[in-house]
Amino acid sequence: MITEHAPLDVRPGQEAAFERGFARAKDLIAASPGFVSLELLRSIETPSRYLLLARWERLEDHTEGFRKSAAYEDWKALLHHFYDPFPTVEHFQIVAHAG
Amino acid sequence: MITEHAPLDVRPGQEAAFERGFARAKDLIAASPGFVSLELLRSIETPSRYLLLARWERLEDHTEGFRKSAAYEDWKALLHHFYDPFPTVEHFQIVAHAG
Repeated sequence: MITEHAPLDVRPGQEAAFERGFARAKDLIAASPGFVSLELLRSIETPSRYLLLARWERLEDHTEGFRKSAAYEDWKALLHHFYDPFPTVEHFQIVAHAG
Repeated sequence: MITEHAPLDVRPGQEAAFERGFARAKDLIAASPGFVSLELLRSIETPSRYLLLARWERLEDHTEGFRKSAAYEDWKALLHHFYDPFPTVEHFQIVAHAG
């Protein structure tokens, strides 16, 4: 399993609209093959900053499967206009865990 | 519950030593009151970059409880010399989840 990590800086003042857009968009990603789970988190220190953590079975399920799907076009239309700057997405593998 | 988010840029070449240090250090944080769980993740795109995601019952369990504990002094001694630059820690609250 891999973790997609995307810090999402939302234009200040558009946080509520972004959260409504995300509530619709999450069904698009959740239906994609290889999707495991996601969390959308909001920063306590910087409330216009969010963090998307999505878990995928394989890296390609995100980079090839979801990103090249028709659903991704809808995802972009719902969400990408909220971001400034445009997010840098990274992928991570688990090294250690506790609890 | 809150999520502590710390991107950890480890000096290149010291990744294996950092992972050994972390394997010892994680028992210190896991024993702290209010600790829920943690994951240490490693970037696929930038292998000297790690990400610590720690879950705490309350923000103060991290910022007051752990950071002002004797265990945190041991944590620092085991880990802080591996980082360049020194990490910026943020705390997040859950907004949405799926899966």
